[in-house]
Amino acid sequence: MKMKHKGILIVVSGFSGAGKGTLMKQLVHTYDNYALSVSMTTRSPRPGEEEGKEYFFVSKEAFEEKIAQEGLIEYASYCDNYYGTPRDYVERQLEKGKDVILEIEIQGALKVRKKFPTALLMFVMPPGAAELKKRLEGRGTESLEIIRKRLMRAKEEAEGIEQYDFIVINDKLEECVDKMHSLIQAAHFTPNRNEEFINNMRKELEELI
Amino acid sequence: MKMKHKGILIVVSGFSGAGKGTLMKQLVHTYDNYALSVSMTTRSPRPGEEEGKEYFFVSKEAFEEKIAQEGLIEYASYCDNYYGTPRDYVERQLEKGKDVILEIEIQGALKVRKKFPTALLMFVMPPGAAELKKRLEGRGTESLEIIRKRLMRAKEEAEGIEQYDFIVINDKLEECVDKMHSLIQAAHFTPNRNEEFINNMRKELEELI
Repeated sequence: MKMKHKGILIVVSGFSGAGKGTLMKQLVHTYDNYALSVSMTTRSPRPGEEEGKEYFFVSKEAFEEKIAQEGLIEYASYCDNYYGTPRDYVERQLEKGKDVILEIEIQGALKVRKKFPTALLMFVMPPGAAELKKRLEGRGTESLEIIRKRLMRAKEEAEGIEQYDFIVINDKLEECVDKMHSLIQAAHFTPNRNEEFINNMRKELEELI
Repeated sequence: MKMKHKGILIVVSGFSGAGKGTLMKQLVHTYDNYALSVSMTTRSPRPGEEEGKEYFFVSKEAFEEKIAQEGLIEYASYCDNYYGTPRDYVERQLEKGKDVILEIEIQGALKVRKKFPTALLMFVMPPGAAELKKRLEGRGTESLEIIRKRLMRAKEEAEGIEQYDFIVINDKLEECVDKMHSLIQAAHFTPNRNEEFINNMRKELEELI
């Protein structure tokens, strides 16, 4: 009897400036078993953004049809545009046994957990708030006011950390990628993600007695 | 700012014949950061058993005094004898940052979790029920009736698996020890085991805004 690992849906949240994007790309690049979910949006592509890479770009009508068909795991609107996670790609990858990663903020993360009770919620943080501020300043493109707004937003997001399964400190990228991988591997060994194995064990015991 | 890892209290349960004892000894032997808790009992030492190694052997009066002083994390009586986990050793090791391992069955495990909400509960299983039976028979010392009783006991214990944080399949010893270690390492990154780090982050953010 073998444990069959079904794919896990992994939701990554964290402060803006914590380095989530780089981390996720590096994780998918370094290890085999991950698939990155691509969101759908009604906003226009920015220069350099490619269809199906950063986002699937669709019209408002197409997005609303997707909602009506329950084709999205979660969605939200932000600055007059919709953003959501298409269900079909995620389910296809999970069935193949892939762990699927999506990046969304806390409200979306909690919605995902309602639909996928075995989803794994990870919260990425910089090693400290001062480091976060330094990273936000380091981009060199933002005004003090915007940095202050981001820090306030981080403070709000920090309220929800207890809802997550794991916190991940992004200090050194490589180390953090390995850590993230090992946390996800560990999550495969919880009882709720191995119901089939446990039920088979119970059945086998029953038959032997 | 650094995450300070406090020690975790690790409770190991599992079927008789799953190899818990060997596994725990090997874990403590292979990795540095573990301490094995020694139970206290009122039963008499068996030939070869040493005071403070297999158990602390005490009188019924001494045990009941310990109960009265709240000096035990959990205790139970079985076949007219008391068995319990002395609190002082466990707390001393946890304060040193050691992860402390105890082996107890499910009722005890749930009592421990009530007193130590961050305790990590692990359930050890053989790769299958047939393998379990083979191991029980392999000892060569037990009658068919006793093996049947053990299998029935295993079936009962299997009812509680969902209460545990992780299941561990003991197929190959070395692999299983490494797996157990990596699951415990992962458990250090849950929010409830890093309250201090999270609260410091919140305070720092507050001060920067």
